[in-house]
Amino acid sequence: MARPVTLFTGQWADLPIAELAAKCGEWGFDGLELASWGDHFDVVRALEEDGYCAERRTLLESHGLGCWAISNHLVGQAVCDPIDVRHQAIVPPEVWGDGDPDGVRARAAERMKDTARAAARFGVEVVTGFTGSPVWHMLYSFPPNDFDEIERGYERFAEAWGPIIDVFDAEGVRFALEVHPTEIAYDFVTTRKALAALDHRPGFGINFDPSHLEPQLLDPVAFVDEFAGRIHHVHVKDSKRRLDGRRSILGSHLNFGDSDRGWDFVSPGHGDVDFESIFRSLNRAGYEGPLSIEWEDSGMDREYGARDALAFVRRTDFAPSGVAFDAAFARGD
Amino acid sequence: MARPVTLFTGQWADLPIAELAAKCGEWGFDGLELASWGDHFDVVRALEEDGYCAERRTLLESHGLGCWAISNHLVGQAVCDPIDVRHQAIVPPEVWGDGDPDGVRARAAERMKDTARAAARFGVEVVTGFTGSPVWHMLYSFPPNDFDEIERGYERFAEAWGPIIDVFDAEGVRFALEVHPTEIAYDFVTTRKALAALDHRPGFGINFDPSHLEPQLLDPVAFVDEFAGRIHHVHVKDSKRRLDGRRSILGSHLNFGDSDRGWDFVSPGHGDVDFESIFRSLNRAGYEGPLSIEWEDSGMDREYGARDALAFVRRTDFAPSGVAFDAAFARGD
Amino acid sequence: MARPVTLFTGQWADLPIAELAAKCGEWGFDGLELASWGDHFDVVRALEEDGYCAERRTLLESHGLGCWAISNHLVGQAVCDPIDVRHQAIVPPEVWGDGDPDGVRARAAERMKDTARAAARFGVEVVTGFTGSPVWHMLYSFPPNDFDEIERGYERFAEAWGPIIDVFDAEGVRFALEVHPTEIAYDFVTTRKALAALDHRPGFGINFDPSHLEPQLLDPVAFVDEFAGRIHHVHVKDSKRRLDGRRSILGSHLNFGDSDRGWDFVSPGHGDVDFESIFRSLNRAGYEGPLSIEWEDSGMDREYGARDALAFVRRTDFAPSGVAFDAAFARGD
Amino acid sequence: MARPVTLFTGQWADLPIAELAAKCGEWGFDGLELASWGDHFDVVRALEEDGYCAERRTLLESHGLGCWAISNHLVGQAVCDPIDVRHQAIVPPEVWGDGDPDGVRARAAERMKDTARAAARFGVEVVTGFTGSPVWHMLYSFPPNDFDEIERGYERFAEAWGPIIDVFDAEGVRFALEVHPTEIAYDFVTTRKALAALDHRPGFGINFDPSHLEPQLLDPVAFVDEFAGRIHHVHVKDSKRRLDGRRSILGSHLNFGDSDRGWDFVSPGHGDVDFESIFRSLNRAGYEGPLSIEWEDSGMDREYGARDALAFVRRTDFAPSGVAFDAAFARGD
Amino acid sequence: MARPVTLFTGQWADLPIAELAAKCGEWGFDGLELASWGDHFDVVRALEEDGYCAERRTLLESHGLGCWAISNHLVGQAVCDPIDVRHQAIVPPEVWGDGDPDGVRARAAERMKDTARAAARFGVEVVTGFTGSPVWHMLYSFPPNDFDEIERGYERFAEAWGPIIDVFDAEGVRFALEVHPTEIAYDFVTTRKALAALDHRPGFGINFDPSHLEPQLLDPVAFVDEFAGRIHHVHVKDSKRRLDGRRSILGSHLNFGDSDRGWDFVSPGHGDVDFESIFRSLNRAGYEGPLSIEWEDSGMDREYGARDALAFVRRTDFAPSGVAFDAAFARGD
Amino acid sequence: MARPVTLFTGQWADLPIAELAAKCGEWGFDGLELASWGDHFDVVRALEEDGYCAERRTLLESHGLGCWAISNHLVGQAVCDPIDVRHQAIVPPEVWGDGDPDGVRARAAERMKDTARAAARFGVEVVTGFTGSPVWHMLYSFPPNDFDEIERGYERFAEAWGPIIDVFDAEGVRFALEVHPTEIAYDFVTTRKALAALDHRPGFGINFDPSHLEPQLLDPVAFVDEFAGRIHHVHVKDSKRRLDGRRSILGSHLNFGDSDRGWDFVSPGHGDVDFESIFRSLNRAGYEGPLSIEWEDSGMDREYGARDALAFVRRTDFAPSGVAFDAAFARGD
Repeated sequence: MARPVTLFTGQWADLPIAELAAKCGEWGFDGLELASWGDHFDVVRALEEDGYCAERRTLLESHGLGCWAISNHLVGQAVCDPIDVRHQAIVPPEVWGDGDPDGVRARAAERMKDTARAAARFGVEVVTGFTGSPVWHMLYSFPPNDFDEIERGYERFAEAWGPIIDVFDAEGVRFALEVHPTEIAYDFVTTRKALAALDHRPGFGINFDPSHLEPQLLDPVAFVDEFAGRIHHVHVKDSKRRLDGRRSILGSHLNFGDSDRGWDFVSPGHGDVDFESIFRSLNRAGYEGPLSIEWEDSGMDREYGARDALAFVRRTDFAPSGVAFDAAFARGD
Repeated sequence: MARPVTLFTGQWADLPIAELAAKCGEWGFDGLELASWGDHFDVVRALEEDGYCAERRTLLESHGLGCWAISNHLVGQAVCDPIDVRHQAIVPPEVWGDGDPDGVRARAAERMKDTARAAARFGVEVVTGFTGSPVWHMLYSFPPNDFDEIERGYERFAEAWGPIIDVFDAEGVRFALEVHPTEIAYDFVTTRKALAALDHRPGFGINFDPSHLEPQLLDPVAFVDEFAGRIHHVHVKDSKRRLDGRRSILGSHLNFGDSDRGWDFVSPGHGDVDFESIFRSLNRAGYEGPLSIEWEDSGMDREYGARDALAFVRRTDFAPSGVAFDAAFARGD
Repeated sequence: MARPVTLFTGQWADLPIAELAAKCGEWGFDGLELASWGDHFDVVRALEEDGYCAERRTLLESHGLGCWAISNHLVGQAVCDPIDVRHQAIVPPEVWGDGDPDGVRARAAERMKDTARAAARFGVEVVTGFTGSPVWHMLYSFPPNDFDEIERGYERFAEAWGPIIDVFDAEGVRFALEVHPTEIAYDFVTTRKALAALDHRPGFGINFDPSHLEPQLLDPVAFVDEFAGRIHHVHVKDSKRRLDGRRSILGSHLNFGDSDRGWDFVSPGHGDVDFESIFRSLNRAGYEGPLSIEWEDSGMDREYGARDALAFVRRTDFAPSGVAFDAAFARGD
Repeated sequence: MARPVTLFTGQWADLPIAELAAKCGEWGFDGLELASWGDHFDVVRALEEDGYCAERRTLLESHGLGCWAISNHLVGQAVCDPIDVRHQAIVPPEVWGDGDPDGVRARAAERMKDTARAAARFGVEVVTGFTGSPVWHMLYSFPPNDFDEIERGYERFAEAWGPIIDVFDAEGVRFALEVHPTEIAYDFVTTRKALAALDHRPGFGINFDPSHLEPQLLDPVAFVDEFAGRIHHVHVKDSKRRLDGRRSILGSHLNFGDSDRGWDFVSPGHGDVDFESIFRSLNRAGYEGPLSIEWEDSGMDREYGARDALAFVRRTDFAPSGVAFDAAFARGD
Repeated sequence: MARPVTLFTGQWADLPIAELAAKCGEWGFDGLELASWGDHFDVVRALEEDGYCAERRTLLESHGLGCWAISNHLVGQAVCDPIDVRHQAIVPPEVWGDGDPDGVRARAAERMKDTARAAARFGVEVVTGFTGSPVWHMLYSFPPNDFDEIERGYERFAEAWGPIIDVFDAEGVRFALEVHPTEIAYDFVTTRKALAALDHRPGFGINFDPSHLEPQLLDPVAFVDEFAGRIHHVHVKDSKRRLDGRRSILGSHLNFGDSDRGWDFVSPGHGDVDFESIFRSLNRAGYEGPLSIEWEDSGMDREYGARDALAFVRRTDFAPSGVAFDAAFARGD
Repeated sequence: MARPVTLFTGQWADLPIAELAAKCGEWGFDGLELASWGDHFDVVRALEEDGYCAERRTLLESHGLGCWAISNHLVGQAVCDPIDVRHQAIVPPEVWGDGDPDGVRARAAERMKDTARAAARFGVEVVTGFTGSPVWHMLYSFPPNDFDEIERGYERFAEAWGPIIDVFDAEGVRFALEVHPTEIAYDFVTTRKALAALDHRPGFGINFDPSHLEPQLLDPVAFVDEFAGRIHHVHVKDSKRRLDGRRSILGSHLNFGDSDRGWDFVSPGHGDVDFESIFRSLNRAGYEGPLSIEWEDSGMDREYGARDALAFVRRTDFAPSGVAFDAAFARGD
């Protein structure tokens, strides 16, 4: 079908974009979802340097690659989170500054506005990313939560992101939150609440990634069906449960890849996600954007995996029916 | 069998102990696991007032009730946790003090030592409770965890609880951690690590409660088999998964009892826990302590439920075989 | 809880109501859902004979029985159905008349209006029953259906039942359709369409019976949750799938009770229906009407079964929590 | 293996046979199962025009295609059915005539005899098709069925089809009923009854199509094992259940392809059918006829799908063992 | 219902029959299935001592107990088995003699004939027991079996048991083989072969015990349906699989009761067996003989268990319907 | 990845090695696991003829094939087994000799020592094979086992194999027992016991073959995880359960390939074994030896199957990650 297949470059930021683009072109990708870190896509330079965006485009095109979305997951995370030392490792030094939480959050919000501006300048209509969450750490209610505080968390999220989305709207760019644990929305209930907190404004939508729903025992197809109109971007990423009565679905505070975890990320097509059913539901939803492979599998060679994943998507995302097909036998006269 | 059935009084702290004891005696319980809050069991008075413990015993005995364990979950939670406003609601004012985290943790640790002393004076050999956790909030590794920090969390736990267990040892009392999300140990992996962090010293063991393992898709019978020697106390509490593809196993930041949650607590025998198999595994483990009903079910009348649960345990915890039974047919001569 | 347990008398119409009422009183039922056939409840006499309703009430009361609903399933079936010889066996001779389909349907509709009037006179607020369906026989689309014809079927249903519900409204009585194969509504989709066809008017609601949903592999709890406000009456009836790869879920044109069927009706508590979860969902829905046992099990003695079913409902429909129960431990001060 | 792979042309009757044959030849099919509608195979012309059959053969052979069976599902349906307006759309005008049911059925029966004669003339030994059913509409017994009437339905089926099969026998052609809802046989029980009604005469057998058994939760492999000797032809068609508690296995009177249905047809290899196990059971049964792909998938491009299905069958219908293989290790001397 | 509930005394042979009968009478059993070992029932004395049978009857009757079957499992085992040292422990010394295998088998066969004679004298029409097997030890074909040798095993079985059944026939007594691993018949296939080997003569039937089928993952209800006419006696015994990926279904050469086994015997109602469905199938089969509890559970007190099992059977073996029940609503006039 | 893929030649002993090697070279195998029967590898000639080993190497190399292990399953079986006529068919005549059991066992043991010597001379470090078992025939404990006798069986195993492993150690070769029913180790429990019986000496390890674990409902991945360090060789063989309630997991004394068996061997990738998860666990275990296809499938052409299996392994045993992959997004600076 016409949906382009891209690679999300976030897990490849150790490679210079020139090298990565060459590889991806050779492997047959249609494009890249550029990460705003490493040397892949620099928001500040995009706004400040005249030729930067054109150069990036030229580089991609020289390898036959397009770009339909850029990502700024890392800075977005800092917009709503309680800030701790882990954020210092993921945001640029100028966003971290002195590390004072309010300041970090404010600078991260400004950088997200700039990301919208840079996307517009670069010519993409979607920015994927995270929002952070004021309440994620209250996930399990002990000591008992004051549930009004949870509600206030959604309000704070709306206060922080509303002005950001104003800039997105002004720039004609949409933000696509990757629904994911640690974010303001990570399942059906919280996605409904997050969309409602922003009054369902169209500039704020979803980067649909089924690998984060499967470990919660959620049905990704039902998710697409429910939020069909709000899916602005799609990640092709897989995860696999390895439950045997001794491994917890919560992950045991173990790093990804540890064999005692109850689930882990795997290369697309090697896990629990039923991508064919998902692609069919995306057809029903009318989604025509890219299928962006976010590749992560601690048990597979990365470059082998990228090619394997691309081949998997190509053979699974087959063309939908162009005509209304009728189960009936046509008499044909 | 000889195992007494008790009621954990923590969820009934709105009732005076005199009233609750009367009810439980009438319902046929063998005893109570007294909570160290409400007016049920006061650690400070037990240590400071000469007749307090005897009075409590007399009250219980007047209703035909024994006591084999006291609980101090709430204060224990504050020993290792990062302290936030929610702790103020669960610890006594003198433990909270000015709310400075280090001070709260230190005072909570002292109160746990006093709890051991009070238990000894009251004549019980087990204190059940929580430990809190320095690392629980890092459950999902994003922003990415420094996993050395997780290891340091177990060290900090050992530094905080080692001196407390010294007092338990001196008093001849054992601490039984309720393995539970938000605690230093909540599954197989973390229980192994917590026990190892304290060098497997016998004074620190487990209050086994299967209702916290089921929602993690863990096998409670395998848990008893693995940690057989370290189970100092048992809670009879049940939980039920209500997964339908739209409800997350993570709970969606919803309060217990909300129908959109992926699981909830229910009265024993009404959920996923296979108590017969658990009681058989406790027989194999040689556990002879109380089966303490921790009753919580947002969809059932509390007093109906307490009686229902007691009847359930009585008919399920049948007498094990007193002799080696042989599958063979005996010839009988 | 306060919900009364009644027996639906439809399957006992071979017994005179005097005899059946005596039995049910002795067995401990709270009341009866009277069928409008046999000598149980006569719509015509109720309207024409002055003392009839009072007599019926006196008879029931003499056995300690109340009545909250009457049933007229058999006549209702003829309102929308294509009429065939099978209808002659289930409607009164004066409704059948000469058997001309249009005439049968018209007379059946008038009789349903009279049923509303009789119910009002008798003092009950609910009539349970069937609607029939103009389109049921087009269930499997071969020869291929004209799906516009299906839509017209819902319109014809609305044209037939709208005037009937007008009378119900005027009499202050509600009609409760038993969602059931062969009716205009038999699952989620068709219930949504049937309610919509009548503009969601409150006089037309549902007699919820999970035994008809289980064989379709539907979730009765989700049904209660979705249609909570429209459930006017509840049947307690069970069914059991006996699928082994050789028995069809469609029933193979075999009579109920045949062991080659893929499913069958069984006494409540002996089948696939999870009544505890259903009763909890009815609590959430605020349903306070009767739980009416519709007893049918080809492998069990009928009178044994009625008592067994009553005991089952009594022990399963426990009292819900009267207060907001908090998972949190209360500090109690 | 030697089994040819054909395409059933029924769903492609909008294309002229010349165009379709060209495509199928190019795609690599071994042959076609020609439908007796569209311009694919004309029973009347085959009998009346001298060169018709030879021309058809020549056309097929020019694309490297054979033909082992022709289909006349549509006319067969009218032989036993209660006739309604839907049949007018599927039978030729001269069979429909004035639409009087008895006349339609009689003319359809004659046309089926002609189909046997045409098949013989064309040189194929199998006609696939439907029978219709006098009792299908009584599937769910409400109003309660007179089950003697069901038995009489099988007798009427035998009366209608016996004379047709006489002609098949005389022509040396066998009829293969596609076991399918709406037909006299749709599952194990009804297939046993239909075969018995015709005294198990060999001229009447089965066109085995697993896609109609899966939605009934039947085991297609067990079906092949039980009816091994009577399988005269095989359709390769797949179906997929999409049950989620809200979608009925009965289909909700929705058209194929609607996402609220509990199941749907899909391209072979994309659904619930375990074709490898089926092909192994066909090996055991000694079936050496064609595997005829009946392609239908409302979510896939038809031409992509035909090629995808062909590749699927080629790689799944591997060669069986030519020798008795022994699990034992051979000593080899 | 009318089916009596008995206790099989084989596992209680350490108790004198007088003591056991007293207990069983008190517990409420209807009778005993007497084992031919311990002092329960002595085949030799029954034949040689005039008053023995009457005395036994009197003893049972004094406790309100009947007897419908006697068991001679242990001697029967020696009729066909390759004899090893284990048999010495289970057969009487005079049957063992010098332990020469042919002699042991011959003497065991004679003793089984005497058992038929003793049963007739005692007034029971069924002897339950084992047959042994010449081929059981060839269960897994390595070194590779000569499968002709398996067939010869069935012939040898028929040669050994044919003459025994001649005596049974002459005495009007039937033998009921407990289908069980280690016997000539242990599943569907081998039961078919064993019955065929004896030409389906009615004197040789089945003692149906579902606990031996469940661990083989067989369906006991299907077994009753298939062998309905040959079920001469029924054991109520339960078993439970405890598979967790590490415990083998084969039992690991561990004794019953070991927690590392993949399955074990448990008290009826505590395992995998669906007794309600079995009792319903026995109703369909017309079985009216005793339900004989064979009690074995290494994790439950034996006397508690016997009473628990009796209560379980009483509440599960409810009365079947005495009349043809019709799903239809009767109009009642 | 670097793991070579070999074919185990045991099931191909009807073909001369020259012919088989030519085929395998052409198909693309990396090497052969040579069976010590047929003319594949002759232990006696390897020790007695100077050029034999070099010739064999030359033959293999001429087809591009290596060899990392030789097999002597058949002779090994006789070392511990009770000897019966079936062994005559699988051991060389000079090992069988006069067939006296003690003599056969002794000569088999000597031949296994020679196999180690021949392996060393041939330049391979692993011999795969069976051990036989003194106790396998006591699998089901009836007549009741003396379980001390089971323990003595492990001692006898150790007495027989200890001296053999002494020679393996001396030669620098390791023995790899194929864990398999009929052997001293066939599951987790018995593998633990067998390893312990030989004091966990490294010369005695495991030839891991998941096809023998699946029918026991064991988890092969857990097996690799538990015995990681002792896996000296791996067989790629698959099996498939075909349970339908009527087919026993025990196999019914039917030959492999019979459709009434509850399970059977199938070509790799066509059964229940999850090879991808196994290969990942072998990566974790650091296993770098060959993946040796043991091909057996009674329903597939052998040569088609060998190629199909090779392709399956090549695409499934993908390269593992060469670097520690981090789930985290790298900031890249």
